[in-house]
Amino acid sequence: MPASVLTKKIGKCVYFFGGGKADGKESMKNLLGGKGANLAEMAGHPDLRLPVPPGFTITTEVCTYYWKNKRTYPKGLRELVSQNLARIEALTGKKFGDPKNPLLVSVRSGARKSMPGMMETILNVGLTPQTIPGLIAQTKNDRFVYDAYRRLIMMYADVVMEKAAGITPADDQGIRKQLEHLMNEAKKRKGVKQDTDLDAKDLKKLCAKFKVKVQEVLGKPFPDEPSEQLWGSIGAVFASWMGKRAISYRKIEGIPEEWGTAVTVQSMIFGNMGTTSATGVGFTRNPGTGDSRFYGEYLVNAQGEDVVAGIRTPGPINEASRSDQSLKRKSLEQVMPEAYQELDDIVTRLEKHYRDMLDIEFTIEKRKLYMLQCRVGKRNGPAAVKIALDMLKEKLITKEEAVMRVTPSQLDELLHPIVDPQAEAANKPLAKGLPAGPGGAKGQIVFTAHEAVAWKKEGKQVILVREETNPEDVEGMRAAQAILTARGGMTSHAALVARGWGKCCVVGCGTLEIDLSKKTIVASGKTLKEGDWITLNGSKGLVYEGSLAMKDASESNQILNDFLKVCNQVRRLKVRANADTPEDAARARQFGAEGIGLFRVEHMFYGKGSAEPLFKLRKMIVSKTEEERRAALDELFVHVKADIKATLKAMQGLPVTIRTIDPPLHEFVPHEHEKLAALAESLGISLDELEARAAKLRESNPMMGHRGVRLGITYPEITEMQVRAIFEAAAELGKEGVRTLPEIMIPVVCVETELKNQLAICERVYQEVLKSQSVRVIGHLFGTMIEIPRACVIADRLAETAQFFSFGTNDLTQMTLGFSRDDTGSFMPDYLKSEILPNDPFQTIDQDGVGALMRLGVERGRKIRKDLKIGICGEHGGEPASVEFCHSLGLNYVSCSPFRVPIAILAAAQSVVKEKPKRK
Amino acid sequence: MPASVLTKKIGKCVYFFGGGKADGKESMKNLLGGKGANLAEMAGHPDLRLPVPPGFTITTEVCTYYWKNKRTYPKGLRELVSQNLARIEALTGKKFGDPKNPLLVSVRSGARKSMPGMMETILNVGLTPQTIPGLIAQTKNDRFVYDAYRRLIMMYADVVMEKAAGITPADDQGIRKQLEHLMNEAKKRKGVKQDTDLDAKDLKKLCAKFKVKVQEVLGKPFPDEPSEQLWGSIGAVFASWMGKRAISYRKIEGIPEEWGTAVTVQSMIFGNMGTTSATGVGFTRNPGTGDSRFYGEYLVNAQGEDVVAGIRTPGPINEASRSDQSLKRKSLEQVMPEAYQELDDIVTRLEKHYRDMLDIEFTIEKRKLYMLQCRVGKRNGPAAVKIALDMLKEKLITKEEAVMRVTPSQLDELLHPIVDPQAEAANKPLAKGLPAGPGGAKGQIVFTAHEAVAWKKEGKQVILVREETNPEDVEGMRAAQAILTARGGMTSHAALVARGWGKCCVVGCGTLEIDLSKKTIVASGKTLKEGDWITLNGSKGLVYEGSLAMKDASESNQILNDFLKVCNQVRRLKVRANADTPEDAARARQFGAEGIGLFRVEHMFYGKGSAEPLFKLRKMIVSKTEEERRAALDELFVHVKADIKATLKAMQGLPVTIRTIDPPLHEFVPHEHEKLAALAESLGISLDELEARAAKLRESNPMMGHRGVRLGITYPEITEMQVRAIFEAAAELGKEGVRTLPEIMIPVVCVETELKNQLAICERVYQEVLKSQSVRVIGHLFGTMIEIPRACVIADRLAETAQFFSFGTNDLTQMTLGFSRDDTGSFMPDYLKSEILPNDPFQTIDQDGVGALMRLGVERGRKIRKDLKIGICGEHGGEPASVEFCHSLGLNYVSCSPFRVPIAILAAAQSVVKEKPKRK
Repeated sequence: MPASVLTKKIGKCVYFFGGGKADGKESMKNLLGGKGANLAEMAGHPDLRLPVPPGFTITTEVCTYYWKNKRTYPKGLRELVSQNLARIEALTGKKFGDPKNPLLVSVRSGARKSMPGMMETILNVGLTPQTIPGLIAQTKNDRFVYDAYRRLIMMYADVVMEKAAGITPADDQGIRKQLEHLMNEAKKRKGVKQDTDLDAKDLKKLCAKFKVKVQEVLGKPFPDEPSEQLWGSIGAVFASWMGKRAISYRKIEGIPEEWGTAVTVQSMIFGNMGTTSATGVGFTRNPGTGDSRFYGEYLVNAQGEDVVAGIRTPGPINEASRSDQSLKRKSLEQVMPEAYQELDDIVTRLEKHYRDMLDIEFTIEKRKLYMLQCRVGKRNGPAAVKIALDMLKEKLITKEEAVMRVTPSQLDELLHPIVDPQAEAANKPLAKGLPAGPGGAKGQIVFTAHEAVAWKKEGKQVILVREETNPEDVEGMRAAQAILTARGGMTSHAALVARGWGKCCVVGCGTLEIDLSKKTIVASGKTLKEGDWITLNGSKGLVYEGSLAMKDASESNQILNDFLKVCNQVRRLKVRANADTPEDAARARQFGAEGIGLFRVEHMFYGKGSAEPLFKLRKMIVSKTEEERRAALDELFVHVKADIKATLKAMQGLPVTIRTIDPPLHEFVPHEHEKLAALAESLGISLDELEARAAKLRESNPMMGHRGVRLGITYPEITEMQVRAIFEAAAELGKEGVRTLPEIMIPVVCVETELKNQLAICERVYQEVLKSQSVRVIGHLFGTMIEIPRACVIADRLAETAQFFSFGTNDLTQMTLGFSRDDTGSFMPDYLKSEILPNDPFQTIDQDGVGALMRLGVERGRKIRKDLKIGICGEHGGEPASVEFCHSLGLNYVSCSPFRVPIAILAAAQSVVKEKPKRK
Repeated sequence: MPASVLTKKIGKCVYFFGGGKADGKESMKNLLGGKGANLAEMAGHPDLRLPVPPGFTITTEVCTYYWKNKRTYPKGLRELVSQNLARIEALTGKKFGDPKNPLLVSVRSGARKSMPGMMETILNVGLTPQTIPGLIAQTKNDRFVYDAYRRLIMMYADVVMEKAAGITPADDQGIRKQLEHLMNEAKKRKGVKQDTDLDAKDLKKLCAKFKVKVQEVLGKPFPDEPSEQLWGSIGAVFASWMGKRAISYRKIEGIPEEWGTAVTVQSMIFGNMGTTSATGVGFTRNPGTGDSRFYGEYLVNAQGEDVVAGIRTPGPINEASRSDQSLKRKSLEQVMPEAYQELDDIVTRLEKHYRDMLDIEFTIEKRKLYMLQCRVGKRNGPAAVKIALDMLKEKLITKEEAVMRVTPSQLDELLHPIVDPQAEAANKPLAKGLPAGPGGAKGQIVFTAHEAVAWKKEGKQVILVREETNPEDVEGMRAAQAILTARGGMTSHAALVARGWGKCCVVGCGTLEIDLSKKTIVASGKTLKEGDWITLNGSKGLVYEGSLAMKDASESNQILNDFLKVCNQVRRLKVRANADTPEDAARARQFGAEGIGLFRVEHMFYGKGSAEPLFKLRKMIVSKTEEERRAALDELFVHVKADIKATLKAMQGLPVTIRTIDPPLHEFVPHEHEKLAALAESLGISLDELEARAAKLRESNPMMGHRGVRLGITYPEITEMQVRAIFEAAAELGKEGVRTLPEIMIPVVCVETELKNQLAICERVYQEVLKSQSVRVIGHLFGTMIEIPRACVIADRLAETAQFFSFGTNDLTQMTLGFSRDDTGSFMPDYLKSEILPNDPFQTIDQDGVGALMRLGVERGRKIRKDLKIGICGEHGGEPASVEFCHSLGLNYVSCSPFRVPIAILAAAQSVVKEKPKRK
């Protein structure tokens, strides 16, 4: 805790609300907690002044004081609490501890950010043998009163006398368990099963037994004194801020310890006072569909916790809320029309006031409606998008607000089928890997690409399970519903390919033991074999045994498109797609991509229909002399040109960044004997000779080997062929009246002379093509990928030659951190678990390291060339936090796989809204 | 050429010297060229005023003007030349073009830096049919005169009329060849063989034929007009600055084009005027031994070029210069005692004046001595060191100067045997690789470590030839005279090990085709087999066929030590050694190391006597559970502690940086079946299981895989074992009264949390050892290696935990440039050849990239911790340019292999001297 907290003077400690007034308001969440602030808002804001049971909130500052001062309170707090209690008494006409008309209060925690279930609540405080008769007289319901007393003793003994006192009993020896045991005995003795079958007398006896037990176990009597109960409860809530559960929850959610919790003391309202009482929860709009009608459920003669507990099935609050389960139940609108009308009116006012969909809690005590809580309601993806669009249409919110109302993961729900969350909750994952491809999928296990294709032909759904994948698996990957690998990271071959297709994929699932010969997987002690069903959650990296229920991707493309249009009006950062085929290019445009940020020449050799060009590529790779290589390149040229031409055409003048061949060549050398034999024959060399050549290509660390521009330098004819293909394609399209903007990108550059060398080739070929095609100009740009740390350092020198930069953050991350993306599986899980790293840097940009180098690259590059176009084409281009970072760096665009384009568009728009406060 | 040259006004164009006066001086080299400046110094400096034939120098600025102004001269130059020519005439009493007593002049080039043989010289200018009779009358030697005329025609036709005119004839069709042909015909006709056998008549006829031929071939007459000859010659010298040879020489030597050449016109002196004339060259001290006596040779009745040409065997200038070849020849001292005495006196004065060993040229014309040239003399390594030390003793030079008088490669000659340079000059290398281990070696080819050991036992000298080496080869590497590999870079396994031992080694010799099964090497079309002799030059990376003569390393250790003492008094940068064994540590101290900058725990498992600990290490590596691993670590602990203890003891309180286990573990997994079987048995597991475990350790890019601190994080027990070994060793030595300063260094760190994690382990173990050893304190430091680019970027955060940094520039270079050191062989030769890179960045630090990150690391680290100790322990620590860079960065020390320590000490001292001008 910073020293400032210790020395800071504490301000006003207690904030009252009730009777149409409130000391606090919604914006004071930091001081009053979410609950306290919203209660104050509802009770006191001039537009609302809703019927809220009166109460007061002790501030979070008191919590901080409490923990910094040996669990004591600031001077004068007791007096303030008394004064505020008196105000509640004045408004309710009841008196705390009064034998005739006693006031009961609830004592609840409330942090700045909701921490559901993490801290404590004590209800019915103020109930003692002295006040019980009065309450019975008031309620005419002795069973209700003794049940309330029974609950108080249980809660108080557990929360205040045991937990807050720091007593940690052995398992099943906690006081609550022991009291529950007494209650179960009472039911057994009476031969009943439900708590509700115990009558007032039973409960009265039980309360007496409870008190004996409390004294026996905790060595202290249960305090039958209202004030002692109140202060015990307040202290227990503050104490719960430092409870084990709360601490570990804060750690996960990143909530700082110094925030503290507030305590809200509020007069009790009872929805269980007979058939004129009720309790319920609702949403101002449907959180599952976004439908703009009030949605909720209620129970007559019940307390709030009963609705949630699910013991009784609640009724629909109105017709709009009726579901299959509540077909025959009457709605609140039907049974208490007046209260419903008031509630409906309040809900309308609340939403208008808060300008968001709200989650509310209410109780009706003897026909009188009370609002107990309101807060911004959680919603699923489709609902979030619909609500944002509707509210924008209703002029309730601005475009900027609409954009902020949908999280990237909510938008993702609209793009992919997912595993039904309920089914997931009910099943334990078999294994956990890295979330490499989004959405969910299920299918039967197959172990080879060949089988995947064969089974698919038989109409089966399959999941391809591999140690790791390579380009030879691509057809099988396409045939499979999803891909699961034991090795590899977020940018491994499987992950890249799957993400490009928007296909579900889990990689690096290290705990899987795959035995290809036996065709089995062993995981969590279970053995699965070929044909067994598994289900994957690719958004979380989870693997389930069996076939789990799925939810389809929203079919409402219209709503997605409408929402993206709003985002487009807000964002500045352009969004492009990484696309390697004309089909991908077309899909990318559909999703809203404004160009192609990465067209990888070598990727045309992957997958379906690529057998012939792949064969020619292989010939080129194992060529030994320039003559052999030029011959193979001539054959390849036709394919490369055709593919580039089709892609340029599909993009209709939008920029297409074409990266010259990059990966280590040996990646393309076949492993299978027959393919090797065919290759040897075609080259007219022996198999031995071919194998010797292939062996020469092997590298210790291929990621830092003979690849990218290094190939273009040692074999200029490879660059030449590609550049010629680009210029000829563009020139021919130009003659057909199709506009094109190819951007030639050189990868793996680390020194300016490499770029100059390649530019010279490019310029020479350009002149040659101008002549041979008889055209005067072919619009294009020449630039470089920035993916080697040194390239960031000398970006100024590169900018002298390059007209654009594109950050290749996959490789930049590898080399900046010294992490081979295919090998992090051995230590990354430990690194994340022990918080050595906050995130997998292959998922979200490592801003302090990789990001710092990027910033250097941007600054130095633009120093030399002010209008330098800068983008990013690593996988990070589709990850929201990384997109925001790119926006803050002032990049011109991000580029990502087509299926991530909508997410990137949203993140780009949100980046604009988030930066606004800084700009003012 | 910068624009400033164009607009800059030209100053004084012509500088006269002679008659005890000179317009110029030695410090005006940039303007007058080396030759012109030194002539002016000798002629005009008040301390010297030596007998120099009078002459004048046209400045380099005129050369620049000439090339920038369409080969014209500044206004007034002709007049200036005439005036200066008149001054020569006045001093010599001869007249240019005078029929009775004609003046002849030489016209020579002279650049700022000597460019031997790259530019032109024309002698005997001024000789024409008009002046010939006068010269004959003066010299009484018509043969001499016609020979001079014959030479003038040949030189002039070749240099002025052909080359300078831009005529490029076909091979063997040049005018010089054609004139030589005429001369050969004349000899044939007369039936003689030597030029000297042609008499005056023959030569006179020949001159007439020459002129006819010149007119015929070049279409112009030879100009028999003194002034035309003079201006033709001047123009030709300026023209030669842009000759092909000169341009390519400048490119190699990095000499800027804008320097230009000066032209010196000087009156001719003739050493071939009979027995009272002579000519010679000398050194003020012996350039081969450093002996401080005047050393030189001479020829009676000869011209300067005859001494160099080697047609006649020269005599010794004095007794000190007498060699086996000149045993019977009289010395100059004997035959011309007076001239010798004058020369000896001049030499003494010159050396005192120049304060360095000089190379001089002189001519005696009819008993009169003339000095023709003087410049700083070239010398070999031992001579350079001795001369520097002697001159320091003689108080001729300061310590700083002495330090600058020896180049690192000269010092290296004292440390290693080398291939005899004459033998090298006479043989063409078979192949060229990277110079990985210094010096020379020869031996018979063997292809396996096993054979190397076996052959060595039989008393044979062997050279181990491998594709690449691995730890299993270490015994064979030790047994071999030298190591030659086809793959790998400057920091490959072979290179590191060899350099550590100071052993000759050539790596990455990609043109070798090694066939292990046939036991052959194919290179340059030749096939060598097992047992064939080869010779390696490890300082240049050359491989020769056969057994070449060798020169031993200087035995004079005393002189080396004396010189290093001088360096020590000058330098600030400390020098440590990389040493992995107690023996290496002892050797490092001998060489002057002030600590160990890198002790690699894993290296104790390499080489001789390491079989047992290596076996245990392997057990640890393939352990699957923490229990297995702890058991193996317990066994290892004994070895690790013993080795560390012995090393700390050897260094007697000097700092010893101990790096925790770093390399990818799979490097240590054996490949041989029997070793695998033994390992499996010892672990009590099946061979299959062992192979499965080993396979799991395989990585795609091991350099960026599970290594260094990543091992320490996932297996904290590995760090724990090592730290415990260090503390226990130090504590025990402390009790024995031995001072120690271990520095614990964590490798591969890229994020501050890694370091904190390891520090926590270190601190816990420290407390445990204090207790168990009952000591109060064990002095030590905790720090980190900086070898990942990200570590430089976040160095400030690392400095919060680390007490020292040590740059691991090998890995930093790999990741900053994305160059895998083992895989650069495929493109580095092309990169160097086409000047994409100026140097191999694994040899000399890439200052713009890696160096920029280092600077960032130093600045950020010291911002947080002002007294942060920073060193470098990559292989660059022993490379002079890199040492200088480290000095300029303000590092505290460099660390390198023991055999490079003297070089590093010298480089460190030179860095101080070089920086001085900046400081003033």
